[in-house]
Amino acid sequence: MVEYIGIAGIQRIVGRMGPAAFIEGLAAEIEADYRRWGDFDKSARHAIHSPVGVIELMPTSDGQMYSFKYVNGHPKNTALGLLTVTAFGVLADVETGYPLLLSELTVSTALRTAAMSALAAKWLARPDSRVMALIGNGAQSEFQAIAFHHMLGIREFRLYDVDSQATDKLARNLEALGLPGLQLKRCRSAAEAVQGADIVTTVTADKRNAIILTPEMIAPGMHLNAVGGDCPGKTELHADILRRADARVIVEYEPQSRIEGEIQQLPADFAVTEFAQVLSGAASGRSAPAEVTIFDSVGFALEDYSALRYLHKLQQEDAQGQQHIDLIPDLDNPKNLFGLLAPAQGSPAGQNGAVSIQLEMTHDEHPA
Amino acid sequence: MVEYIGIAGIQRIVGRMGPAAFIEGLAAEIEADYRRWGDFDKSARHAIHSPVGVIELMPTSDGQMYSFKYVNGHPKNTALGLLTVTAFGVLADVETGYPLLLSELTVSTALRTAAMSALAAKWLARPDSRVMALIGNGAQSEFQAIAFHHMLGIREFRLYDVDSQATDKLARNLEALGLPGLQLKRCRSAAEAVQGADIVTTVTADKRNAIILTPEMIAPGMHLNAVGGDCPGKTELHADILRRADARVIVEYEPQSRIEGEIQQLPADFAVTEFAQVLSGAASGRSAPAEVTIFDSVGFALEDYSALRYLHKLQQEDAQGQQHIDLIPDLDNPKNLFGLLAPAQGSPAGQNGAVSIQLEMTHDEHPA
Repeated sequence: MVEYIGIAGIQRIVGRMGPAAFIEGLAAEIEADYRRWGDFDKSARHAIHSPVGVIELMPTSDGQMYSFKYVNGHPKNTALGLLTVTAFGVLADVETGYPLLLSELTVSTALRTAAMSALAAKWLARPDSRVMALIGNGAQSEFQAIAFHHMLGIREFRLYDVDSQATDKLARNLEALGLPGLQLKRCRSAAEAVQGADIVTTVTADKRNAIILTPEMIAPGMHLNAVGGDCPGKTELHADILRRADARVIVEYEPQSRIEGEIQQLPADFAVTEFAQVLSGAASGRSAPAEVTIFDSVGFALEDYSALRYLHKLQQEDAQGQQHIDLIPDLDNPKNLFGLLAPAQGSPAGQNGAVSIQLEMTHDEHPA
Repeated sequence: MVEYIGIAGIQRIVGRMGPAAFIEGLAAEIEADYRRWGDFDKSARHAIHSPVGVIELMPTSDGQMYSFKYVNGHPKNTALGLLTVTAFGVLADVETGYPLLLSELTVSTALRTAAMSALAAKWLARPDSRVMALIGNGAQSEFQAIAFHHMLGIREFRLYDVDSQATDKLARNLEALGLPGLQLKRCRSAAEAVQGADIVTTVTADKRNAIILTPEMIAPGMHLNAVGGDCPGKTELHADILRRADARVIVEYEPQSRIEGEIQQLPADFAVTEFAQVLSGAASGRSAPAEVTIFDSVGFALEDYSALRYLHKLQQEDAQGQQHIDLIPDLDNPKNLFGLLAPAQGSPAGQNGAVSIQLEMTHDEHPA
């Protein structure tokens, strides 16, 4: 039997502790894993592109546990009433190869992306940062705001989206949370949102070489959290921002970021620093208050590994919340796999008492 | 909501039609897909190896549907009462990136491997083949026997395994099926089993360069169905068998087989033929009755794509048998993912009528 966390499961887990505490706890797990960067089997994700989107697999392992995530990116889905990004993943035991946990990762990816953004900003942004521009107010935006409010003490969020209804939704969701000291400023343009911000987070979805930020918008000392540019042909920053003499570009896993990140716009020898090197002290993050730090984030498999292990731990602590699915056979004689299809000869269905569990499901309205 | 086929589900599906008909139907699906070889995005599987085994991901797509399989290979698992190979997979819609079906593939991989072996033999073995040596009588062996009895008219099976209890189990399972004209001969060695066989199937599990078959065992006209050698350092045939002047070696996807197949023992320029070329007529399979044909099988993602699409179709035909899991969120406003964590603001759990389904589970005896 494989443990299962579906949408009802993640609602239960995050509902128990609240999104801010969940994100902070996850950020600590991600940091601990990046501190042992050398333990992980690393590869750029496997992507299959179509004209309308991409489907990716993101595997990794530290030799003890194995994990992978399935994730798609289909910007036009929202027009169909569907999510741009959906994801799920599995945590497995390297010793036996058996999957331990199958979990939804659509909600969890938003949580882990926000955790990773805030973790990177903790190391790269000016400690006195209080104002963040949040450009792109879609599915990921609340998670980013909660993470930066809780983990970095950001109090003022300057909101902008080409879709003003998305900004309405974000403002409504954030106001309902009653976060202490929260101020929301709705802006009429990206330039207005960036003006006076300490941190600029771009989390837009268009699959194109967009230019959300232009060089004249950027002031010394800013930290740019570039989240939306995360696959070939999908960028958000004007390349000259990356080329600034005072800019330092930090990536997660360089070989993958060369393909998917903002740096896909630049030659392969353009100097970047891996985040793990900043954590280990091998490289410095921000070396001066006036420097411009750029976290060219695309999302790396290690972060999903951390999320799956964290979810598994939280699930273990909540006995009543545990669900299981019969994804893997359970055999008395592992050489008698065929016995499963011949109940008379003793399949588990025949031998073992059948038990049934309830999965709480949300009613399906959109065909998916 | 994502369709789900677990162990109870595959038992129901195969139980409805019987394993022989299931395998024959699947072989037809696999053949149809190999006939449009050029439509598929192909890559060697992604493998992470450990001292005790391997965990692999096998993605592919034809531009309409996407599929991947998770599969492990841990030969020592049987000593722990666990399966050597477990697997599951997903079929997804390329247009939206949404997963359509999550299915167990442990049982299904045994069925699809048998279907692929019999399909290849239909094209490569002598049409008058009636006797098959079946070396390795573990989890896959019944499936091979059923496929070759049903699809090729094999009547006599010559069984050998280093573990005589495995042979007992295989003989017991096959006799219980009452297959017409079936004759089982238990042999004391691989050499005895191969003697006089038209087809030799090797499906052993040791992760080492084993030598199950040696050159002097092989007679002109034989077809070798080499199933067990399927990852680096895991082979079953003496290399001189592949080097026979009268031997023709057929593989599934050459770049993957160079890494994982029997041909890993040979230089990269050793001549092989891809099965798709045989189907298309671009290359001949067996060109003379006295030729030795060798299907150097490792299992390719296309075969799992076929299996998942076949399972999805069979599931669609059985309304009562359908199960769903809440792996992917269903949102009224796809930009309001956060709404899932704020029920008051209208998560599906709040808005939509919650429905519950039953998953029939087999009771867990071995911790997995």
